[in-house]
Amino acid sequence: MPLQPVLVNAAWREALSPVGSFQAFNPSTGTRLKDIYPISSFAEVEEALEAGHAAANALFKTLPEAIAAFLENFAGSIESHADELVEIAHLETALPKEPRLKSTELPRTTNQLRQAAQAARGRSWCRATIDTKANIRSKYGPLGGPVVVFGPNNFPFAFNSAAGGDFAAAIAAGNPVLAKANPGHPGTTKMFAELAFESVKKAGLPRGIFQLIYHLRPEDGLRLVSHHLVGATSFTGSRPAGLRLKEAAEKAGKLIYLEMSSVNPIFILPGALKERADSIASDLFNSCMMGAGQFCTKPGLVVLVRDEHGEEFLRIVRKLFEQPPTGFLLGQNVLDGIESAIKTMKNAGAQIVTGGEKLEGAGFRYANTLLRVSGDIFLQNPAALQQEAFGTVTLAVFAEDFDQMTKVAVALEGNLTASIYSHSADLDENLYTRLEPILRRKVGRLLNDKMPTGVAVSPAMVHGGPFPASGHPGFTAVGIPASLLRFAALQSYDNVRPNRLPPALQDKNPTGHMWRLIDGEWTQRDI
Amino acid sequence: MPLQPVLVNAAWREALSPVGSFQAFNPSTGTRLKDIYPISSFAEVEEALEAGHAAANALFKTLPEAIAAFLENFAGSIESHADELVEIAHLETALPKEPRLKSTELPRTTNQLRQAAQAARGRSWCRATIDTKANIRSKYGPLGGPVVVFGPNNFPFAFNSAAGGDFAAAIAAGNPVLAKANPGHPGTTKMFAELAFESVKKAGLPRGIFQLIYHLRPEDGLRLVSHHLVGATSFTGSRPAGLRLKEAAEKAGKLIYLEMSSVNPIFILPGALKERADSIASDLFNSCMMGAGQFCTKPGLVVLVRDEHGEEFLRIVRKLFEQPPTGFLLGQNVLDGIESAIKTMKNAGAQIVTGGEKLEGAGFRYANTLLRVSGDIFLQNPAALQQEAFGTVTLAVFAEDFDQMTKVAVALEGNLTASIYSHSADLDENLYTRLEPILRRKVGRLLNDKMPTGVAVSPAMVHGGPFPASGHPGFTAVGIPASLLRFAALQSYDNVRPNRLPPALQDKNPTGHMWRLIDGEWTQRDI
Repeated sequence: MPLQPVLVNAAWREALSPVGSFQAFNPSTGTRLKDIYPISSFAEVEEALEAGHAAANALFKTLPEAIAAFLENFAGSIESHADELVEIAHLETALPKEPRLKSTELPRTTNQLRQAAQAARGRSWCRATIDTKANIRSKYGPLGGPVVVFGPNNFPFAFNSAAGGDFAAAIAAGNPVLAKANPGHPGTTKMFAELAFESVKKAGLPRGIFQLIYHLRPEDGLRLVSHHLVGATSFTGSRPAGLRLKEAAEKAGKLIYLEMSSVNPIFILPGALKERADSIASDLFNSCMMGAGQFCTKPGLVVLVRDEHGEEFLRIVRKLFEQPPTGFLLGQNVLDGIESAIKTMKNAGAQIVTGGEKLEGAGFRYANTLLRVSGDIFLQNPAALQQEAFGTVTLAVFAEDFDQMTKVAVALEGNLTASIYSHSADLDENLYTRLEPILRRKVGRLLNDKMPTGVAVSPAMVHGGPFPASGHPGFTAVGIPASLLRFAALQSYDNVRPNRLPPALQDKNPTGHMWRLIDGEWTQRDI
Repeated sequence: MPLQPVLVNAAWREALSPVGSFQAFNPSTGTRLKDIYPISSFAEVEEALEAGHAAANALFKTLPEAIAAFLENFAGSIESHADELVEIAHLETALPKEPRLKSTELPRTTNQLRQAAQAARGRSWCRATIDTKANIRSKYGPLGGPVVVFGPNNFPFAFNSAAGGDFAAAIAAGNPVLAKANPGHPGTTKMFAELAFESVKKAGLPRGIFQLIYHLRPEDGLRLVSHHLVGATSFTGSRPAGLRLKEAAEKAGKLIYLEMSSVNPIFILPGALKERADSIASDLFNSCMMGAGQFCTKPGLVVLVRDEHGEEFLRIVRKLFEQPPTGFLLGQNVLDGIESAIKTMKNAGAQIVTGGEKLEGAGFRYANTLLRVSGDIFLQNPAALQQEAFGTVTLAVFAEDFDQMTKVAVALEGNLTASIYSHSADLDENLYTRLEPILRRKVGRLLNDKMPTGVAVSPAMVHGGPFPASGHPGFTAVGIPASLLRFAALQSYDNVRPNRLPPALQDKNPTGHMWRLIDGEWTQRDI
């Protein structure tokens, strides 16, 4: 069987001297799928980087309107091929077709592309800043090299390297994208890439604006992200892989954005527990089992006080977790990851309340798993006990008292999110006031009375946070236009002649409604 | 003679088990100054980090108004002590008292502090973003740990770690500062620190908001920037030191902002050369000799076509460079650095046109030095020929033709700035259009018909650029409010109860005129 083609240097073609091949799995049966994909050689990577770099040059003068038209055309094309996309993604990930793939993730994906198009067209994202007195003008502009996107396994549509949020943000900011498919769903990614490339041609954009390879040897991944032609890399995936890429990229002075791991702690204050243990338990379970627990924002840690209400809460949660899992894990590596994380937690003193074992039968499945540990033991080994286990797994930490809850908060690493549940009136207000400052600096998004799964595509969303949740707490991977700023350089024009300024910085507002910061005032007017 | 005290953990005190001591030099005589300063132990650093971290906690709820009052009081206090500051800075740096220290750099410093105060009070810098429909709100907030500032040798006031731009930006964004003095001017830094600490007390701020140590063993510097309690580090200085700190910090997942080196190329297009060689030559010389050539933005590379006009231009520049230098170098290390850079350039094929030697007599002095090299040779060894030589040293690159000028541009590393001089009418317009896209992506600031020295403190200024000029092209070290964003985390509040939101995100505009992005519109109104 021939290897599937790559999209490199403006054409679909056979891989150039591939160094190996691979197949994806059907997670619901555990068997290999038939299509065979190449593991690219570094020569192929270098050709793609050269082509991407040339495209970055060509994009320098491309109008945002053309980029917007491409993104919108692509969104429409995805909708026209929704059934095929859902079919292959379901085959490769075993995620439910309905509502997950077709009615939730696919519309989210096209919505992101359209929001990115709107951002590109509107131009306000680039934060044009004009000092009329000094005649200095600045804005964010493209990086001048291709953005390499490593997509994760868990969102074959919305975070796909060929259609997801990073793709949309990098393109909307005026950069070419070199997509590295997640090996869990190469067929889905290839189908997106085919549609994207058709839309590139229709929009008349430089064809090197988008390229696709499927897989690399680990050492070639490190060479890729540190290559001098790369503009930036965006990686969503496991912490060990992310840390290796981070070190390689940064040593070479290259930008890399990472979304690596997070346990998304849920703190339940005593008043809330007394008031509504049932509804919080059900919130927790529903959040933990979304996507079979394979969400970056899955709550992996629940912190509460050990008293009768805490124990009663755990009994309710246990009942919910005792149900058999409804979904499959995305791959053998996810199953291995859960086993390893649970082993680490058990070795550190956590006890299994329910679950804790692989399930027999076809496909990749693990029992819903609830663990518990005392605050004392947690504080003795906080690193081992804040393991991300990618599945329906959560650890309840029973603190002696509220003081110990705050100590648990202090011992947390950087996370994407933290939630605080409190009494609906003001019974927990004092405790909240003490806990919040500790958690606020540790997370990108702080929630009240709400589970963190369901990351709204809002301009005010922050999907990021302090290391090791991400690599830089000043950025977000979700939320347009903010997510574009990861892929932009701040550029000023000092005494540059009016006719040579980019339209966004000329006296006349280029769209009539672009927001610009002129002499300290945000305005849509001309100068 | 006793060691000078450090400011650690809210008090001036003797250094804790110092690991050594040092003295500054008078650069105009080359002799040691009398005061002796400690090289701090790592135990002292750790104590400072603990205190800084506690201050970060306390600052969490400190009102921006109190921070602003501190910065303004400090600015006033600097003005009241201007003569003493000028005296000691002149002694330690040999920079002229007038106009440089007293009438240029000191007012720039107090101006920055007052602009930072205004930014803190006005709050618009934090880019509050509110999605009323989803009830998600975000803004930039402090990092939660102290910002370590390593100041450079060349601006004892405006970039001083205890009073300069990074200090002002980090404090205004709500972070404590741990200043590491530049060993070239510890006395100046100590005097600023004394004034700052008095202002801290007056403003009633947490006293750990500002601390000062003078020097560290190199290995302790690496441990400092990678310490888990650090919020971020800001470093301005040499590339080798910067790269070592960068690697250590990033390996630990810690933020570090660097301003390391730049040759600030000047491209002179043929029409400009024909039209006004004299005035450009004089611009160039004046820019090169500012601060005895010790500016980050000193033009170290001039690119032009080798023809009669180019040669004539060089003759004019040579005459200007043949004058004896008017200033002193900041230290023996600067002198050594120039010698080493010029040796590297000569070995790579550059020829000395004038200068090229250390000057006899007292103090640290080096002849104004002009070098030349052909475009061919430059392109054979671009790395060696874009050496930063911190002094009145510049290299003219004579390209065969305009095409070769563009190749030289392609071979450049990331720089802070690039300038293009062109004919005052449109004779050079086509060439400009070809050159600009190449340079634009390589620099933070692009200038027309202007030398890059003189970095205006403007909201549209970018003092930064692609690696190795800085560590991240999305930020600037000069220009308020943008420079504050280096020391901030993006934080969102999802479904957080109204009374628990920070004032900047509540429905009511906290100042009545703070700019916020509400549902896609920048506005000063309430919700």
